Amino acid sequence: MALLIYSAVWFLFCLGALTGTEGGKLLVVPMDGSHWLSMSSVVERLAQNGHEIIVAKPENSIVKFGSQHFTLRNFPTAYSNQDIHELLQQFFGSQFSSSSVIEVALTTYNGILSVQNMMNSMCESLLHNKQFIQKLQEEKFDAVLNDPMFFCGVILAEHLGIPSVNFLRGVPCMYDYISAQCDSPLSYVPRPFAQNSDKMNFLQRLGNTLFWLSEPVFCGAAFRGWERVASEFLQKKVTAIELLSRTSIWLMRYDFVFEHPRPMMPNMVFIGGINCAGRKPLSQEFEKLVNSSGEHGFVVFSLGSMVSEIPINKATDIAEALKSIPQQVLWRYTGKTPPNLGENTHLVKWLPQNDLLAHPKARAFITHAGSHGIYEGICNAVPMVMLPLFGDQMDNAKRIESRGAGLTLNVLHMTSEDLSNAVKAVINNPVYKENIQRLSSLHLDRPVHPLDLAVHWVEFVMRHKGAPHLRPAAHDLNWFQYYSLDVIGFLMFFLLTTLFISLKCCTFVFRRCCKRSSKQKPKSKSQ
Amino acid sequence: MALLIYSAVWFLFCLGALTGTEGGKLLVVPMDGSHWLSMSSVVERLAQNGHEIIVAKPENSIVKFGSQHFTLRNFPTAYSNQDIHELLQQFFGSQFSSSSVIEVALTTYNGILSVQNMMNSMCESLLHNKQFIQKLQEEKFDAVLNDPMFFCGVILAEHLGIPSVNFLRGVPCMYDYISAQCDSPLSYVPRPFAQNSDKMNFLQRLGNTLFWLSEPVFCGAAFRGWERVASEFLQKKVTAIELLSRTSIWLMRYDFVFEHPRPMMPNMVFIGGINCAGRKPLSQEFEKLVNSSGEHGFVVFSLGSMVSEIPINKATDIAEALKSIPQQVLWRYTGKTPPNLGENTHLVKWLPQNDLLAHPKARAFITHAGSHGIYEGICNAVPMVMLPLFGDQMDNAKRIESRGAGLTLNVLHMTSEDLSNAVKAVINNPVYKENIQRLSSLHLDRPVHPLDLAVHWVEFVMRHKGAPHLRPAAHDLNWFQYYSLDVIGFLMFFLLTTLFISLKCCTFVFRRCCKRSSKQKPKSKSQ
Repeated sequence: MALLIYSAVWFLFCLGALTGTEGGKLLVVPMDGSHWLSMSSVVERLAQNGHEIIVAKPENSIVKFGSQHFTLRNFPTAYSNQDIHELLQQFFGSQFSSSSVIEVALTTYNGILSVQNMMNSMCESLLHNKQFIQKLQEEKFDAVLNDPMFFCGVILAEHLGIPSVNFLRGVPCMYDYISAQCDSPLSYVPRPFAQNSDKMNFLQRLGNTLFWLSEPVFCGAAFRGWERVASEFLQKKVTAIELLSRTSIWLMRYDFVFEHPRPMMPNMVFIGGINCAGRKPLSQEFEKLVNSSGEHGFVVFSLGSMVSEIPINKATDIAEALKSIPQQVLWRYTGKTPPNLGENTHLVKWLPQNDLLAHPKARAFITHAGSHGIYEGICNAVPMVMLPLFGDQMDNAKRIESRGAGLTLNVLHMTSEDLSNAVKAVINNPVYKENIQRLSSLHLDRPVHPLDLAVHWVEFVMRHKGAPHLRPAAHDLNWFQYYSLDVIGFLMFFLLTTLFISLKCCTFVFRRCCKRSSKQKPKSKSQ
Repeated sequence: MALLIYSAVWFLFCLGALTGTEGGKLLVVPMDGSHWLSMSSVVERLAQNGHEIIVAKPENSIVKFGSQHFTLRNFPTAYSNQDIHELLQQFFGSQFSSSSVIEVALTTYNGILSVQNMMNSMCESLLHNKQFIQKLQEEKFDAVLNDPMFFCGVILAEHLGIPSVNFLRGVPCMYDYISAQCDSPLSYVPRPFAQNSDKMNFLQRLGNTLFWLSEPVFCGAAFRGWERVASEFLQKKVTAIELLSRTSIWLMRYDFVFEHPRPMMPNMVFIGGINCAGRKPLSQEFEKLVNSSGEHGFVVFSLGSMVSEIPINKATDIAEALKSIPQQVLWRYTGKTPPNLGENTHLVKWLPQNDLLAHPKARAFITHAGSHGIYEGICNAVPMVMLPLFGDQMDNAKRIESRGAGLTLNVLHMTSEDLSNAVKAVINNPVYKENIQRLSSLHLDRPVHPLDLAVHWVEFVMRHKGAPHLRPAAHDLNWFQYYSLDVIGFLMFFLLTTLFISLKCCTFVFRRCCKRSSKQKPKSKSQ
């Protein structure tokens, strides 16, 4: 009976938390593209909880930001919809056209710089829009929810003087951990893009260290633009790390089922799997496809929301591989139909990825290893074949592969046979299924759903005007003090001085004794 | 409507989690005394969730371990109830009889050694009880829940080869953080017993470093006994840190409202305030006392469950101070009644501390700053006057004082006036109440109750036979590798060799050039 009463109280608490009687005012500065997919669920829920929410977004964007529960406030930019799409197509397309490793790296680097320039320009359009900024200032927000990959929200939080919550998979060069004052030992915390796991041999640790040493070059380039925009707008010299270190709460879009365990800080909240919704019924079209798959089941294949077409020669190779497996394949692809497409392969312009993966007949997931897709694979326990393209995808694939829950292929160099073998392996070798099931059961066994957790912490920051009690005192120390170099220096000085004085004393006493004895000796002789 | 359905599902989930259909088997090795107070709530709830629980406890103990929901399994020891009480009385009594700082330190050190010897002896009685151990082995437990201050559970977990959950306020010398592979930077993480906050000036940081340097001496003494017992029983040389590093989950009995924010690890769960129960109605006796307090309200005074009497001269001083305040005082005290006891001061043998502090008329809490009491003060937002005696109490008091929510007095040296002024200050200066209210609102604003969190993680370890996914790879590295000293050494060697070869080459080329030009010169001359 007591249990029932307790449960009823908890039910009412949950209900209260969901309906949220006291509304606050939140500014949201999202990142365009797939990043918005998981952030939108938090924003939607916050709006349903009665908070007044304004989403500041560029007039033209890749994804649709529409909602009936919150207000969209567009700011004009120099980029038309077509400009954005062309830039992204060029970027993603170039991933397939490069051949050598150096060419891939250079293409990616140039592509990132172009996207970076676009984002900087968009941010400047926002910040220099005096009317827009004035209106934001008048709103008196309680907090700002940012995706720091579009750094503009971080700059706005500083300008408006309001606490910020950062919602992210990661910031280049671990600026998130550096800003949070959290050490990342090079010996077992792999640097981003280094494609190491947490278990490294000497050479891998050496590589990890060299990667870390080279980061200032790349990170300087990645953040220089933002720092210039921020310093000009705020009219003071600021660094990206200084601005990020004001963060009240870091909502990290991963957990330690997927990421390697490592030190963390109390203001970091891990919400991996926030994008895994419950399984919804499939539409008639997909239900029919899925049911036709028979005992062999089906394979879901998508390279993410940003890449829906690929060069025809690559598509032909892939089609050849897919033809060779007994499963039905649902492939999200909008490009030219490969001439050798198998009967088992169905091209679709869009697919309900999570609902398909949640279907008991889903046997494998061929994915670009974006963090959203990876978590849908984990939530639904579907082993993966990963074809990472850029960004964190290589690292994501490494994480899953190191846990034996999938296989990674280089999309540029793989052959039809490689893909065919990989898909057959993850389906037919029970180890992959067992491993992904283990990951899934660990991931789903949590005291609070990641969406509730994220909503709680945004509301917490709004209610308490930040989370200063979670801010480590390390922020008030310079690096010299942080590593206790002044204390070590003083102790060394004290030790050496003591040693020196002791030595001098000993020498002095020794000399005196010697002198005395040498003086005494002649005396005794004379006697 | 969707919200209601969601809430109903969550309600059922909560209900499911509470009733827990699938029962596991848990061994509990608790620490006697006040430590059991909060652990018992977790054990009770786990038992109610349908798990079979066996609590291994010494035949004679300070607190009563009784419950109808779990099984107590007593093991005989060489200590009678009287022995234990005498030892503890001697230990606690000696805290009041010392006068100088050195005497206090020595008395405490000797006292701790005596208690340590008793615990070691009790543990040996358990481990050498072959029948008892055999029976435990046959039970096939899923996990063991330990209080690592009574290290026996940690040794048992190793022997039985089952995953362990450690439930603690802390382990001496931060062996908990060391074992969890979590760095504690000396510049802002105060060492235990150093009585620093996280904001230290140079001298305090120097002191903190010296404290850390001296720790191996004290910690060696504290753990040597356990290591001997463990090595003998396990028939292999083991250290306390090696044994503790097997811990699956650390249930830390604090949060960052109370403790200073610092690095942590993914397998650390913070359950501060787990002991704060909801307010229950007061008995007639206390209701009458509380109601008679009028507009001035009342003060709760207790030195914890272990210290109920103090020397009469100290009690007389305290009575004098309490007489001078307009509040009614409820004082838990079983010693000789001080002759000068005021009419407003009521001596009681036991008091419902949390229920009294939760009463709206509670104005201040005079406490020994034990972690349980401190959290009851925080939960109920009652400002504190702290009279720390030993163990972590000085540090606890420092935490609360540094947040402006209470005042600390040295119980040995304080005068009646000091106590009177301190109580008046925390009651009449609104800053203390405001600060404790702020702490309380931050502490109580959490997504899951600490009790539910603790229960979830014990059940998690039972369900998944540990939590290996939360174990950092740092455990597989030696200190040389952990700090990348081999990599740094290699890079230095490479750098110096390159520098040396470059220099040699330059010198060689330079010499050749000089030689040639010096050869050419005479030639030209001859020409």
